[in-house]
Amino acid sequence: MDISALRDKHPSHWMKAAAIRALTLDAIAAANSGHSGMPMGMADVATVLFEKHLKFDASAPNWPDRDRFILSAGHGSMLLYSLLHLTGYSDMTLEEIKNFRQWGARTAGHPEYGHASGIETTTGPLGQGITNAVGFAMAEEIQRARFGKKIVDHHTYVIVGDGCLMEGVSQEAIGLAGRHELSKLIVLWDNNNITIDGTVDIADRTNQLKRFAASGWSIHECDGHDPDAIDRALTDAKKTGKPALVACKTHIALGSAAQDTSKGHGALTDPKVVADAKAAYGWTAGTFEVPADIKSQWETIGSRGGAARAEWEARFASVSQNKQNEFNRAYALDVPNKLSAAIKALKKKISEEQPKVATRKSSELALGVINPIMGETVGGSADLTGSNNTKTADLGVFLPENRAGRYLHWGIREHGMASAMNGMVLHGGIRAYGGTFMCFTDYARPAMRLAALMKIPTVFVMTHDSIGLGEDGPTHQPVEHLAISRATPNTYVFRPADTIETAEAWEVAISTKTTPSVLALSRQNLPTVRTEHKTKNLTSQGAYVLADAEGKRQAIIMATGSEVEIALNARDLLQAEGIGTRVVSMPCMELFEAQEERYRKRVLPGGPVRVAVEAGVQMGWDKWLTGERGKNNKAGFVGMDSFGASAPAEVLYEKFGITAEAVAEKVKSLL
Amino acid sequence: MDISALRDKHPSHWMKAAAIRALTLDAIAAANSGHSGMPMGMADVATVLFEKHLKFDASAPNWPDRDRFILSAGHGSMLLYSLLHLTGYSDMTLEEIKNFRQWGARTAGHPEYGHASGIETTTGPLGQGITNAVGFAMAEEIQRARFGKKIVDHHTYVIVGDGCLMEGVSQEAIGLAGRHELSKLIVLWDNNNITIDGTVDIADRTNQLKRFAASGWSIHECDGHDPDAIDRALTDAKKTGKPALVACKTHIALGSAAQDTSKGHGALTDPKVVADAKAAYGWTAGTFEVPADIKSQWETIGSRGGAARAEWEARFASVSQNKQNEFNRAYALDVPNKLSAAIKALKKKISEEQPKVATRKSSELALGVINPIMGETVGGSADLTGSNNTKTADLGVFLPENRAGRYLHWGIREHGMASAMNGMVLHGGIRAYGGTFMCFTDYARPAMRLAALMKIPTVFVMTHDSIGLGEDGPTHQPVEHLAISRATPNTYVFRPADTIETAEAWEVAISTKTTPSVLALSRQNLPTVRTEHKTKNLTSQGAYVLADAEGKRQAIIMATGSEVEIALNARDLLQAEGIGTRVVSMPCMELFEAQEERYRKRVLPGGPVRVAVEAGVQMGWDKWLTGERGKNNKAGFVGMDSFGASAPAEVLYEKFGITAEAVAEKVKSLL
Repeated sequence: MDISALRDKHPSHWMKAAAIRALTLDAIAAANSGHSGMPMGMADVATVLFEKHLKFDASAPNWPDRDRFILSAGHGSMLLYSLLHLTGYSDMTLEEIKNFRQWGARTAGHPEYGHASGIETTTGPLGQGITNAVGFAMAEEIQRARFGKKIVDHHTYVIVGDGCLMEGVSQEAIGLAGRHELSKLIVLWDNNNITIDGTVDIADRTNQLKRFAASGWSIHECDGHDPDAIDRALTDAKKTGKPALVACKTHIALGSAAQDTSKGHGALTDPKVVADAKAAYGWTAGTFEVPADIKSQWETIGSRGGAARAEWEARFASVSQNKQNEFNRAYALDVPNKLSAAIKALKKKISEEQPKVATRKSSELALGVINPIMGETVGGSADLTGSNNTKTADLGVFLPENRAGRYLHWGIREHGMASAMNGMVLHGGIRAYGGTFMCFTDYARPAMRLAALMKIPTVFVMTHDSIGLGEDGPTHQPVEHLAISRATPNTYVFRPADTIETAEAWEVAISTKTTPSVLALSRQNLPTVRTEHKTKNLTSQGAYVLADAEGKRQAIIMATGSEVEIALNARDLLQAEGIGTRVVSMPCMELFEAQEERYRKRVLPGGPVRVAVEAGVQMGWDKWLTGERGKNNKAGFVGMDSFGASAPAEVLYEKFGITAEAVAEKVKSLL
Repeated sequence: MDISALRDKHPSHWMKAAAIRALTLDAIAAANSGHSGMPMGMADVATVLFEKHLKFDASAPNWPDRDRFILSAGHGSMLLYSLLHLTGYSDMTLEEIKNFRQWGARTAGHPEYGHASGIETTTGPLGQGITNAVGFAMAEEIQRARFGKKIVDHHTYVIVGDGCLMEGVSQEAIGLAGRHELSKLIVLWDNNNITIDGTVDIADRTNQLKRFAASGWSIHECDGHDPDAIDRALTDAKKTGKPALVACKTHIALGSAAQDTSKGHGALTDPKVVADAKAAYGWTAGTFEVPADIKSQWETIGSRGGAARAEWEARFASVSQNKQNEFNRAYALDVPNKLSAAIKALKKKISEEQPKVATRKSSELALGVINPIMGETVGGSADLTGSNNTKTADLGVFLPENRAGRYLHWGIREHGMASAMNGMVLHGGIRAYGGTFMCFTDYARPAMRLAALMKIPTVFVMTHDSIGLGEDGPTHQPVEHLAISRATPNTYVFRPADTIETAEAWEVAISTKTTPSVLALSRQNLPTVRTEHKTKNLTSQGAYVLADAEGKRQAIIMATGSEVEIALNARDLLQAEGIGTRVVSMPCMELFEAQEERYRKRVLPGGPVRVAVEAGVQMGWDKWLTGERGKNNKAGFVGMDSFGASAPAEVLYEKFGITAEAVAEKVKSLL
């Protein structure tokens, strides 16, 4: 590359972009780790985007109608941090840049949502950003349809690298965006032909332009170091009525000795390499120094959107108070006041009628109460709508011809669904839930973990939650997935026993602001076990005494979901033999763990034999069996220690020994 | 569809295909569950494939040079079972067909590897079959290069549905096959435009032909009900020098009332629907009855490959005995005799030299011993070769111009890598291992689970296994992933403490025949803790006493991997205070659990305080802390209860309190 020619041709642009490159080099040298090449390669594209296209106001980072900028190639975090610092985001101080990758800094190795304003999502696990972005763009469409173009009208821009495009989930994103004609989604591809192992083509020779075009995208190309070309491409990309890919031909680690090599992907920390690169840029300022005139130009960019923001605020103030309230309530993740009463009414009705239904059906009943009073919910399923029971009558299907639709047919894309749902929630104003079979938690895992890490309340509706699904067999029967979800920090895993518990679980899941929920729901019908109406949400305590011992309390049986019925039947068998037995329903271990010890002790006192029954692996149960005042020689588990099998559900429960008789026997063997 | 026209045009073909359709209808009606539409739609394609193209011999299902047939759309299992039964596979009796989806039957709801001959892989989780198939085709290329075309020369055929193609992992498969010009891979797409939720285009409008072409595939189309057209397309597809897609335009549930509808996807069990469909087919035989002449035609197809097989056997007998032995040994998954001595020699050398290296480097050292003497190993990494240390000098890189290469640059495709590795192992003759960061277990999960379910010894090399990776932060720091892998049945999770344990872990992982292994390896350097050479493989016992208490045994500290060093340091602190402390290294919980109780009791006697230290979540440890003779009030854990953070590794260990001092304090607080 003839760097000096670039410099000479667009001197003002060049020095702004050089500021990004210099800060990147300095921060990574100071941290002695990081990824230099991507910010150095994409600085020109980002500069043009921020200067000429991105609608934002650094002084109002949470302005709801801002354009969203997502760095899907999250390892290039210094690109984002540099932009935020340069444009004047108040929490992205030079001190933060200097503390790049250090304990407590906002400037983590990869962008972490919540650490600083302007970080719209956590990225680093590749392919997530572009898929989140699909959710952002859907959220924008849905809210525009609901609140009007005066209030909601913005773009979502995403920078992706070759890694994002190789991850399979990107195909799910591309397919969804193309199908739904998400014309306000613009993807900027850092097309540098370099990955860690070498040139991209050692692993992939896909023609990305043709690939995106095959899914209905508009395709654009530019020299990623020519500001005029970048500007033209971005201008064109916004006009097409389709999602747009802008392939930006770039040089990784531009201007350094490592340019165009895999070495350039990582941390360039050698003082001579850093010094030479800066010299090539014509950058003479000291370490972490940005000349005042350049900083000032950047700050002008940062405040460029101020007027538009003020105009938006005026427009917002002009809409009905009710609309404003609804908009603000949804963004604040507050639930409507009437939710609580509505859930209570459902519980009362159910405790009286005592239906025997699958908890996936119970979930539909709960949603039937929630969706009409919470206009911010968006439901969906990964092509299992009739099985997941996620669609209620009022939602309408989201499609280009029905942007007000609140139900997504995600297709057979569990991962894409989960990641795009995260995007919707991150966008603001939406509470997203989506369904698949519990076993396919596996496919959605990367995004489910990120919801927990980002502290956002996405709801994963996982039906067919055990061998109870029957004939589809072990590929479809979750065994370890409750443990997997419970092992994940900041995740509520609900496994309700009946419609009442399901409604209570939904109430928590749809109210919480900082924790994703997994609802593990049965395929098979279950009796109503909560036959006495309680206004209190017992599920919110995680576990509670469902049926106490009659006579001396000799045993406690703990169970969740479909096995609560078995526990109750085992109790009957034991009580008939005079063995006082308590049944504890434990729909959410995490919430139980969060209770005060006094309460936990009341539910699980020391002394009695403890047996847990759950049609999953034991892992996660020992804590309540032998921990928590339990005893090694007085504790037992009835569940699965292998994968399942293909047969009718009743046969499987019998063959795998998950029966009331087996539970009662286990208790007796421990007395 | 004008069924009678189809019938009249190709009467002999039609009746053979009708046999598949009739058996499908009967089996699903008997089971009262299953998926009718796919077998009914793809019967013509499958009939032509088996009759005219697939090289197989029903009497020798494991003939190594057979073509492989993979049903990626595994819910259409009755298609496969019908074909196996009709062509005369001896273990696929009519009784099995009648017992479809029942306990103990070979005919599970989805095809389960190992249940019956001719089931090349377990499918059902969509997208896996096509990705396995990429591994099959790679294995064929690698073995052809190694053993010669006389011995290895076959195709891999895959039937995929729309669901497979929507799953992101299929893009990883498509990219890999295109890049590597896997010309013996033929994908037959059941293009019926129907999924469970409706027509495909409610969720996807991707032009699949263009999508595959963008990755370098050859593209073919045919009417999936015209046997001549199918034959032509298959003939063409094999000639292109590229992987080939054959888009077969079909009608789901052909000839039934549910044809071309979502209803047709599932179980057609209504007697009238079944009877009417059979009538439309001109099928007059009774339930589960196949007229003798039709069965006989099918059996002729089943024995069609007999001569080719005999010729192959003659050719095989003509190659050198050494080649035959190596070929047979690899297919039998036997390790060479010299492996054991080579591992012992490495252990001896290391115990003397006592290097301080990361266990990912230790793994490279072990592979440096294994790969030269096991020509069947194929290594790789998802674009982290230098970080995963998976490449040894002798392997060579697999590329079209170097088919003998035994190292795969998988690209940024953890899921595709894992699934294709499974395919290689399933193909036979290959032991595959591949690396990524431990955190990206999340991306590879669906395939890792299937390895465990299928009982195949794929090896997952997962480096950067804790907060010890440092600055990349929580998106890259596994916390729950040890628990996730341990929760999965039939999975060895190794977390070795030093080079000796790593070599021992590799010896188990590369020798086992029925269990996949996860090797959790450190980024950071670790001291050699096994300083005294033992020929015995202590890791194969799962846990063992690494350092015993001096004086009265008051405490047992259990640890794995990088925390064994911390445990030993904590022991020093405690012993200095006169507190007799044993350190148990526990590199593999699953193998420890498999030991006799006598041994387990020797390692973990009741009585002493127990503290476990591992830089992950507690889940999975309670079993050894409070279970297994432990006591609730004398057990403690030092580890993580949240996600990690971005900072240098030492800082993180300090801030999260995973230190020798904290472990010693925990012990003392429990004495």
